[in-house]
Amino acid sequence: MAGQATGIAGKLTMAKIKRAAGRLTGVAHHTPLDYSVTFSEMTGNSVYLKLENLQKTGSFKIRGAYNKVMSLNEGSRTRGVIAASAGNHAQGVAYAALKAGIQCTIIMPDSAPLAKVMATRGYGADVVLTPGGYEEAYRFAVHMQKEKGATFVHAFDDIDVIAGQGTVALEIIEDLPEVEAVFVPVGGGGLISGVSFALKSMLPQVRVFGVQATGAPGMHISHMHDKLMESRFASTFADGIAVRRPGKVTFDLTEQYVDDIITVDDEEIAGAIILLLERSKIVAEGAGAVGLAALLGKKVHMSGCKTAVILSGGNIDINTLSLIIERGLIKTGRRIRLRVLAPDRPGSLCKLLAVVADTGANVVSVLHNRIKLSVPIKQVEVELALETRDLEHIGQIISKLSQDGYHPEVYT
Amino acid sequence: MAGQATGIAGKLTMAKIKRAAGRLTGVAHHTPLDYSVTFSEMTGNSVYLKLENLQKTGSFKIRGAYNKVMSLNEGSRTRGVIAASAGNHAQGVAYAALKAGIQCTIIMPDSAPLAKVMATRGYGADVVLTPGGYEEAYRFAVHMQKEKGATFVHAFDDIDVIAGQGTVALEIIEDLPEVEAVFVPVGGGGLISGVSFALKSMLPQVRVFGVQATGAPGMHISHMHDKLMESRFASTFADGIAVRRPGKVTFDLTEQYVDDIITVDDEEIAGAIILLLERSKIVAEGAGAVGLAALLGKKVHMSGCKTAVILSGGNIDINTLSLIIERGLIKTGRRIRLRVLAPDRPGSLCKLLAVVADTGANVVSVLHNRIKLSVPIKQVEVELALETRDLEHIGQIISKLSQDGYHPEVYT
Repeated sequence: MAGQATGIAGKLTMAKIKRAAGRLTGVAHHTPLDYSVTFSEMTGNSVYLKLENLQKTGSFKIRGAYNKVMSLNEGSRTRGVIAASAGNHAQGVAYAALKAGIQCTIIMPDSAPLAKVMATRGYGADVVLTPGGYEEAYRFAVHMQKEKGATFVHAFDDIDVIAGQGTVALEIIEDLPEVEAVFVPVGGGGLISGVSFALKSMLPQVRVFGVQATGAPGMHISHMHDKLMESRFASTFADGIAVRRPGKVTFDLTEQYVDDIITVDDEEIAGAIILLLERSKIVAEGAGAVGLAALLGKKVHMSGCKTAVILSGGNIDINTLSLIIERGLIKTGRRIRLRVLAPDRPGSLCKLLAVVADTGANVVSVLHNRIKLSVPIKQVEVELALETRDLEHIGQIISKLSQDGYHPEVYT
Repeated sequence: MAGQATGIAGKLTMAKIKRAAGRLTGVAHHTPLDYSVTFSEMTGNSVYLKLENLQKTGSFKIRGAYNKVMSLNEGSRTRGVIAASAGNHAQGVAYAALKAGIQCTIIMPDSAPLAKVMATRGYGADVVLTPGGYEEAYRFAVHMQKEKGATFVHAFDDIDVIAGQGTVALEIIEDLPEVEAVFVPVGGGGLISGVSFALKSMLPQVRVFGVQATGAPGMHISHMHDKLMESRFASTFADGIAVRRPGKVTFDLTEQYVDDIITVDDEEIAGAIILLLERSKIVAEGAGAVGLAALLGKKVHMSGCKTAVILSGGNIDINTLSLIIERGLIKTGRRIRLRVLAPDRPGSLCKLLAVVADTGANVVSVLHNRIKLSVPIKQVEVELALETRDLEHIGQIISKLSQDGYHPEVYT
């Protein structure tokens, strides 16, 4: 562990994190740290999942937000708080303010999913919808904050917010004192700042790895170049960590206390989400699954290690989840799309479908193209989507269709 | 509570259930009993979810199977155990035998999902696949049992199995001693027999409700007619409770200790699964979700009640989950399929799609039918699948398309 961080980052102390933990008792859950047989076997380590997706409001954000709100003096509390967010931070701040009994305004882009707007309003916040995206909402919030004198609650670059997120580490240490490595999702860096500080302070031998999406690698490139940098893009379906520029404070703390920042792509994240659904019976959002994706992708060489993976949240849009499952089904051989050629005469489609039925595959959809230039005259092209058992089953179907002269071709 | 059950059912005792609990320590999880803000608000009761979907092997079945295996004498243990199942019971028995260190044969229908076959083999069981369905597998298992002298482990109609399932009730009482009502999924009746016996013995005031699928109502009709009856069908996607005939022992116990048996249809079950995914971030299988479906459907008149709902398992086929989500999206206005009429001329489809884009809807698929008798000449029919925000958003899209002369028509 390097020397102490300086500047504002130097103000973070274990006392602040412990005070946050005291404040959070009875407000946030001490979430389970579940040993996973499946992921332990798959990776050759002892893997424990820290289930912040089961946290109140569906993510860890409530921890930092509530600690921030409770750190305010009497005068500030009277003037309330304000925040800009389309996601987990909005719900975290609103719920924190509700619990603290203070006024709360949340600025959200009008493109935010209605479910999130409703949830935030459900916690009693005044929600103001602004045209455009997050940037516009943020600017409007800063403007409104100046007018109202309310305290602006930053999503990550704030010592009290960071101290609150650090309480996740205290729970991990309490439940698994012999922990050797921890994987933490990184967007703006609030969670990893608090967690790595607490871990390295209490257990200096623990290795801490931050994980980002390849499409939004702000902290990763900053770490590579040893200076705060902004990513040119924030392009990932893991919206909870789609942040272009990490915080100043969070960058300083990460530089001091984190062993490495690694990245995983959207395909790897989606794969981890599906495994969590199928094997662990839990729902993680994209940002929540990056740590597991990194471990499964063997991005760090380690084995036999007692490893905690923080699943930071579970607030995934169900349309997105549906698409991820669909892709996962195709990848694992339980759904296939085939193009075949059949003779253009009565009864031909029926015969084809009988062949398909014989293989035990279930038809999802059929598209019958009679007029298409690339298809030989007197033949039709049929597009089939089938439910299948596994890749071996698909092999059997393709070889049966080939034998019968249908020239099957897989497409995606 | 009526008098004691007679016959074999009369042999169930609290001592047996408590001994089962002792045996299960360190083998099965004491699963969480989670308070749900969402479902409490939706139903006007205090709702606690008993998360047996997070149990080892993904369902409660390990409890009864392990207790059965540990009840065998030395001689029987040497000869091993045998069971027939395509689902949770197979994994429960295999895992139990593995933990007890005895030989295990599981007969599965060859139509069983490969994932379940692999999981069962993964626990060290000899898996024998038989052609046909469960009935054929069962007959083969009985035949093989006679040859090998192994002990047949019934999925529900067995006192030791029932005593093992009863340990779920002990955990509920330990975690929520003031519980007032419990909802329990019912297929063959093993779980509800053990649970209702333990509950009524320890807390006679507690009300216990069994829940079945409308499509497989064996215990429900038996309860209505006060005699053991077989349902003519077992038609539900909740395969874990798709049982036509309840057990003799389980029927007797249910008659004695259960307040009522109610039913929910597949639509209601699917709705409960989606809510658990979205709000509780957990995966339940169909059988696991029936209790919540009954509570949400207000099948029992109650309010302000401390209510435990047993989510019995999470082993849902991901193809099935994908279809349930798809239907759920349409029902809640986040996916819509529309048929519109557009002029048959160059640029027409492009113009239509521009109108759609303006409404903020995202296109999932487009089907353009030029040749269709029911469509007026000089017009084409276009089928659109769109991602939408909610029912209000759909209303806006339809009224915009109507204004522009596209005659939109919703279909499913």
